[in-house]
Amino acid sequence: MKRILLAACALAVCMTVSAQKDGGFLSPQGLWEKTAQTHRRADFPKINEEGEFWFRFAAPPTAEEVLLRINGKDYAMRTDSEGFWNLVFKSEKPGFREYHFVVDGTPVNDPGVIPVYVNGVTSAVEAPGLASDAFYLMRDVPHGDVREHWFHSGVDGNFRRMFVYTPAGYESETSRRYPVLYLQHGAGEDESEWTHSGLAAIILDNLIAEGKAEPMIVVMNNDFVYKKGDRIIRLALSENWSANFEEMFVNEVIPDIDSHYRTVPDNAHRAMAGLSLGGMLTSNIGIKRPDLFSWFGLFSGGVTDDPAKLHDGIMKTPAFKDVRLVFMSCGELEYPERVNKGAAGVNALGGRAKGVGYVSPGTAHEWQTWRRSLYEFLPLLFK
Amino acid sequence: MKRILLAACALAVCMTVSAQKDGGFLSPQGLWEKTAQTHRRADFPKINEEGEFWFRFAAPPTAEEVLLRINGKDYAMRTDSEGFWNLVFKSEKPGFREYHFVVDGTPVNDPGVIPVYVNGVTSAVEAPGLASDAFYLMRDVPHGDVREHWFHSGVDGNFRRMFVYTPAGYESETSRRYPVLYLQHGAGEDESEWTHSGLAAIILDNLIAEGKAEPMIVVMNNDFVYKKGDRIIRLALSENWSANFEEMFVNEVIPDIDSHYRTVPDNAHRAMAGLSLGGMLTSNIGIKRPDLFSWFGLFSGGVTDDPAKLHDGIMKTPAFKDVRLVFMSCGELEYPERVNKGAAGVNALGGRAKGVGYVSPGTAHEWQTWRRSLYEFLPLLFK
Repeated sequence: MKRILLAACALAVCMTVSAQKDGGFLSPQGLWEKTAQTHRRADFPKINEEGEFWFRFAAPPTAEEVLLRINGKDYAMRTDSEGFWNLVFKSEKPGFREYHFVVDGTPVNDPGVIPVYVNGVTSAVEAPGLASDAFYLMRDVPHGDVREHWFHSGVDGNFRRMFVYTPAGYESETSRRYPVLYLQHGAGEDESEWTHSGLAAIILDNLIAEGKAEPMIVVMNNDFVYKKGDRIIRLALSENWSANFEEMFVNEVIPDIDSHYRTVPDNAHRAMAGLSLGGMLTSNIGIKRPDLFSWFGLFSGGVTDDPAKLHDGIMKTPAFKDVRLVFMSCGELEYPERVNKGAAGVNALGGRAKGVGYVSPGTAHEWQTWRRSLYEFLPLLFK
Repeated sequence: MKRILLAACALAVCMTVSAQKDGGFLSPQGLWEKTAQTHRRADFPKINEEGEFWFRFAAPPTAEEVLLRINGKDYAMRTDSEGFWNLVFKSEKPGFREYHFVVDGTPVNDPGVIPVYVNGVTSAVEAPGLASDAFYLMRDVPHGDVREHWFHSGVDGNFRRMFVYTPAGYESETSRRYPVLYLQHGAGEDESEWTHSGLAAIILDNLIAEGKAEPMIVVMNNDFVYKKGDRIIRLALSENWSANFEEMFVNEVIPDIDSHYRTVPDNAHRAMAGLSLGGMLTSNIGIKRPDLFSWFGLFSGGVTDDPAKLHDGIMKTPAFKDVRLVFMSCGELEYPERVNKGAAGVNALGGRAKGVGYVSPGTAHEWQTWRRSLYEFLPLLFK
């Protein structure tokens, strides 16, 4: 039932549509193999067996130009006899594609889909993955819960939200304690996107059901922590972004998690990973604290080709003796050499920590890279 | 710190703004007393001490007309010297206000706020409540978690999502079992809105922290269940909307909850309530099944002035002997007489079930009515 459409990485094909094409398209409810959501009254976007999307927008009669802006490129839409603007589009890449319409210069999200957060609120569709990407499709296996968990932070003076994945079985095995992965998003996302755009809970459910990953708790916090008076630098970051996050994370988040959930509260059972900015946080904060963490994942962020130099050479010191894994990854179109050199650099130190490099075929700085990175990373943890 | 702004129910005041007005306005992060979320790079919307909102939209230079559409009414925005379109607006009512901009006829959500779902994806702001509305402001009390919980439904053949609130203490008191309230949204919302727009988790946290409500599990499902071949009638409902929901709810949801969570799985510890369409489901399904439920809440939906006639007079039969509460409510601008007559009708039957009517002062068919209804209803449950 959960068939994956095999979409070759074909060049984008754009064409206008005739009403007759309707027959071959699936309804929005059939989109994305149930991994994302549509507005329940929506008839569009649709997808067909060839992986082509049919986008439609109802602009007012006075509109002169409507574009589809997807992957940062613009494609002109055309009106049909009923006055709708249409475009059939085939993504050149598999996976998560953010998009919106542009009506006479004004960006407008697609009212047919539930938006996600990528540098702001935006629409997204899911282009069919390769056969090897089936790991992120929802299956009828036991599902963990993703919890919205609130705490009050003395660091920024606000109530803050984190998301906490607890694995299937957590509810019934009430005397069991679990290891914890702290997983951070990138500068474009917020704390909800590892499970929404990233499909992390589905990836975890599937790996745990197959016995490939240890049942674990996964904690996802927002990277952005502001103190009063902080100057804002690029990407809405405080000038003290890393130090602010470290203070909140170490002094408030970890104790909160260890007191609220059945964790094993030691460094052997605690991992930290992140994508992009989250990888930088992992490098800046996690690797400096091997008393807290023994497993690290740097996905398209915080990757260095000379890990021996990090934090005054901490990897060469006895402080690093418990560390088991430094995983580095990126997309093939990013910096694969740095990833491979970095992983080899960890192994060259000859310590207990194993360096592992992973390069996602054909992808760039994008969710498909990070979903695959997570899928490669999780089976290595807590073993 | 969590001060509530006292906003009288003043008439809407609209004016254009000059840049000097900036000083009196709070940043978006200060909006809504932390009960809703803004895009982290947003400078607008803002609110001032008088409860006035300052909306701003950056339309392209070619735009000829930009409107604020709020509460279903349009207000013309005006350009300033920097080319932004501005409007200062004071809501005539407290609470949740949905809105969007209309740029030359095209509806556009406000990129400054995280949208909610009200008959589709829309922007919303929170107008300052009355002093008596402070019950829905987040406080530094122990917080329950709101879990995204997935299951596979054989009724509609889809993976479905529900949200499950577990109270503070649920994690530590692992041998304790809890009563369950099943809480349904209205035709305009989805399963996420009782906790997002409705602030149900905050209301629960505050009442439980004060000892006014019993710690309970609250389960929120999507009202809409489709079977293949169903004809769609108004509001995107299947022609079999109530029967479809009943089949999924009784055969799949309740057993799933009783098997996954530490419930007390009997009718004395199970309640059902809902707003609007969710109240109709409660009346159609819940009241028919006193073997499953003993506590009912009908908020602006399913309210009848002759409860003795429901389900062939079931309230007068021995089947209803365990039922303890039939709560009916609406806004003062809806049908208060029906609510009061309905509650009196329950009491006139002389059974164990108590009829309680509640009318929300000054409100209509809107979230402020349902937040207040929930706040009045919860302390009556499971006691």
